[in-house]
Amino acid sequence: MAASKPTQPVRGTRDLLPAECALRDAATAKILDVYRRHGFARIETPVLEHMELLGGSGGGENEKLIYKVLKRGEKLDLSRAGLSEDDLVDCGLRFDLTVPLARYCAAHQAELPAPFKAIQFGPVFRAERPQKGRFRQFTQCDIDILGEAGPAAEAQLIAATVEALAAFRLPGLVVRVNDRRLLRAVAQACGVSEPAAQERLFVVLDKLDKIGAEGVRGELVAQGLPAASADRLLEIMTGAPGAGAAGRGESGLAALRAFAARVGHGASIAALESIFGALADAAPIGNTLRFDPTLVRGMGYYTGPIFEIGMEGVGYSLAGGGRYDEMIGAISGRAVPACGFSIGFERLVLELTHRGWVPDGGEQRVALLHDEADELRAVLVAATRLRAEGLAVSVIARRKKAGKQYEELQQQGFAGAANFVAGAAPELRWFEAR
Amino acid sequence: MAASKPTQPVRGTRDLLPAECALRDAATAKILDVYRRHGFARIETPVLEHMELLGGSGGGENEKLIYKVLKRGEKLDLSRAGLSEDDLVDCGLRFDLTVPLARYCAAHQAELPAPFKAIQFGPVFRAERPQKGRFRQFTQCDIDILGEAGPAAEAQLIAATVEALAAFRLPGLVVRVNDRRLLRAVAQACGVSEPAAQERLFVVLDKLDKIGAEGVRGELVAQGLPAASADRLLEIMTGAPGAGAAGRGESGLAALRAFAARVGHGASIAALESIFGALADAAPIGNTLRFDPTLVRGMGYYTGPIFEIGMEGVGYSLAGGGRYDEMIGAISGRAVPACGFSIGFERLVLELTHRGWVPDGGEQRVALLHDEADELRAVLVAATRLRAEGLAVSVIARRKKAGKQYEELQQQGFAGAANFVAGAAPELRWFEAR
Repeated sequence: MAASKPTQPVRGTRDLLPAECALRDAATAKILDVYRRHGFARIETPVLEHMELLGGSGGGENEKLIYKVLKRGEKLDLSRAGLSEDDLVDCGLRFDLTVPLARYCAAHQAELPAPFKAIQFGPVFRAERPQKGRFRQFTQCDIDILGEAGPAAEAQLIAATVEALAAFRLPGLVVRVNDRRLLRAVAQACGVSEPAAQERLFVVLDKLDKIGAEGVRGELVAQGLPAASADRLLEIMTGAPGAGAAGRGESGLAALRAFAARVGHGASIAALESIFGALADAAPIGNTLRFDPTLVRGMGYYTGPIFEIGMEGVGYSLAGGGRYDEMIGAISGRAVPACGFSIGFERLVLELTHRGWVPDGGEQRVALLHDEADELRAVLVAATRLRAEGLAVSVIARRKKAGKQYEELQQQGFAGAANFVAGAAPELRWFEAR
Repeated sequence: MAASKPTQPVRGTRDLLPAECALRDAATAKILDVYRRHGFARIETPVLEHMELLGGSGGGENEKLIYKVLKRGEKLDLSRAGLSEDDLVDCGLRFDLTVPLARYCAAHQAELPAPFKAIQFGPVFRAERPQKGRFRQFTQCDIDILGEAGPAAEAQLIAATVEALAAFRLPGLVVRVNDRRLLRAVAQACGVSEPAAQERLFVVLDKLDKIGAEGVRGELVAQGLPAASADRLLEIMTGAPGAGAAGRGESGLAALRAFAARVGHGASIAALESIFGALADAAPIGNTLRFDPTLVRGMGYYTGPIFEIGMEGVGYSLAGGGRYDEMIGAISGRAVPACGFSIGFERLVLELTHRGWVPDGGEQRVALLHDEADELRAVLVAATRLRAEGLAVSVIARRKKAGKQYEELQQQGFAGAANFVAGAAPELRWFEAR
C-alpha cells in the first residue's frame, strides 16, 4: 500500500486528541452551567451563511478572511469570460456568531421571548495567516441579550461572563470598559469625523499596548493625520488616569469621571456610570472593573459600551463584547437593541492547559482485558456488570506483556484494569496514583 | 430603515430555537454518557477537509454533494482561460465523519492507544436537494474502534449503540446485520464481478423495501443486467427467510445459516456468527438482532460486516455502520483495521420530538422582575442569592400588564417569577403546572 494522500489537517486547522477534547468538554459544561443559571438558553445557526450578510456586516478585518463556498450544479458557469468571485460563490462560512445571530433574530422575532437571552457555542472560520495559537477554525462562546436597550443588559452580560471565567479560578481577572460613542467623540475632537477614517484611527489606537504612544503617533501621521491631531489624540488618551499601557489598572469610576471632564459625551458617560454602579456589589466583579478609554474592539458594528476581560499581566483578552443596536434593524428593517459578550474559547483552553487545570469528577475508566479464547458473550456480560457499578469500562484484548500493557493503560488515563475469568467476577486491579 | 438582506438561513439549512437546542443537548448528553461508560473518548477533526481526501474516498453518492471552498488570495487566478472546478478550490466541507477519522488516525497513529475507541459528534454537510426532514448541514454521532480486527469490535459497537438508543425508551428497536463480502459473493454468483458494477447493483438492491422485487428487477434490467441474472439475484435474496420487505423480522442465526447454505462465503458467515454469538446475552440487544441479506449501506468503503438499527414498522434507520479495513491504509500506507457505527442524530431528534420525549431534570428557571426605578445593583445581588438556592434566574424588566407577562413567561418554560422589592427577599410565585 502506498501512502498517497494528505494526513495532516487542512492548513491552519487542527485535530483534537482525546485529552484535549476531555478538557474542552469539561470547560464547556462549566461555562454553559453558569450561563444557564443566569437565564440564557442555547440556540444554533448554520455554519454556512449568506455572502450578502457576511460582506458589509461591519465585521471589520474579518470580512477579508471569509471562506467562500463554490456554487454547485447549473448555477456554476465557468465558461463565461471575465469571471469575478461573486459569480462563483453563493455562501460562506461564518466568521463570528454575531452576524448570524442578527439574521436569526430578524427571522424568528415572532417566536422569541423579549428580552431574548441567547447562548451560542460553535465553530467560526477565518482564513488568517497561520501562526502559533491561532487557528482558522476555532470555537466561540457567546451570550447576547436582544430587546433590552438599557444598561441592565451590559451589567448582566458582564456579571455572567466574569462568573463563568471565575469558575476556573483564574487569578487577576480584569474587566475593561469603554464606549464606542466616546471614542468617536475623541476622534471628532481630533478633527476626524468621517466614519471610515475614524475606524482606521481606532485600528491604530488599538495597538497602543503593543507599539506605545510613539508608535501610534508614527502610524497615524503615516495615515495622513496631521501631527497636531495625533498629539491631541495621545494627550487625551494617555493623559487620562488609567489609560494606556502604563497607567492602566488603577482606574474605575474616578477615572471615568476625570475622562468625562476632558472630552464630555453625556450619553456614553451615563451608560458607563450605570454599568459600573450596577456591578459595584456583584462579587467577584466589582473591584475588577476598569475604565479604559483606549479600548477599541475590532468590529465596526458596535454602537455603545464595549468591554473585554483579560488577566493582569497577560497581553491578550479572554472575552470581548459590546452593544450593537443597529445590526438587526439593518437586516430586518425593524430595530432591536442588542448587546453581546463572547468568550474566546481557544484562548481560555490554552490558559487552562498552561495552568494544568484538571476538570473535577467524571467516572473512573477501567479496562476489562480478555483473550481470544474467552467467550466474547461472557466478556460483554462481565463488562455490563462492571458498568452497573458506575465504572466506564472498555473491553480490550490482552497482550502478552501484561506489565507494559498496564503501563500504557495508566498513561491513557485508565484508573485500573481487570482480567476476564470465565465464571468468576473480574477482579479489579487499581493502578497506583501518579 | 429598509430591510434589504436575507433573514432566512442558507437554503437547505436551518436555525435551531431554544426548545430544539434543549432537547438536542439533553439527547447528546445521554448518548455521550453511554458511550463514555463503554470506554469511548471524544475526538474532533476540522469541518474543512482536503478535497483530495473527500473525492475518491469511497463515499459513494455523497462525493457528488460536497461543498467546495474557493481558494483565497494569490492562489485564486480567475484570469486563466478554461478554468475547471479543481483550479478554483482547495478544500471542502466534510460529508461524513469517517473519512476525516481515517486521516486523523493516519496522522496521529503514534499518539493514539491501540485499540482506539473514538466518539465523534459534529456537523457534516451535503448539498442535497432540499426536502422535508433532510438538511444540508446535519449532525452525526459516530463511534469507531480502530486497531481491532476481530468481531469484538462489531459486538462492542452494536452493544453500545443499542444501549444509547434504548436509553430513550424507543420501542421495537431492530438491529439488521449483513456483510459486504457476502453481497459481493452474491453479485459474483449473478455474473457481476466488476466492483463499480457491483456498487450500482447494490444501490438498486437497497431500494427493495421501497420499490419491491418487480421494481428492482426492472431497474437492474434497465442498467443492462441480463434478465436471468436479475432473476437469480432476487431468488437468492428474497428466497432467503427473513429477507426482503415481507420476510424481514423473523430471522436470526437460523436465517443466517440457511442463507450461508445458499451462497456460501466462509469468512463473512464466520464473522457474522461470531457477532450474533457475542451479543446473545447482551440485553436488550440479543433478541433484536436480525440477519438481512438485502442490507446494503450506501458507502463503497465498507469491507466486512455492515449493520443498521431501525424500529419495527418505521421505514428509515436510526443508525448505520460497518467495517472499513482498507481506508486508513489507503491514506497512511499502513493498514489499520477499523469499524464504526453512526447515529443519525437528526432522525433520532425527529423521532424523540414526535414522541414528546421530555429530558429529565435540569434546574428550574425563574424570572426576577424589576422596574427601571429599582437600583440595578440591588437587583443583581437578589438574583445571585436566588441562584445560590439552585435556581436558574433571569433578570427581566417588569411590564405593565403583569398577568400577560406571567402567561408569556410560563409559555417560555419558566417555573415561576418574583418581583424585586428593595430591602426584602424576593417572594417567588410558582406558576401552576399545565
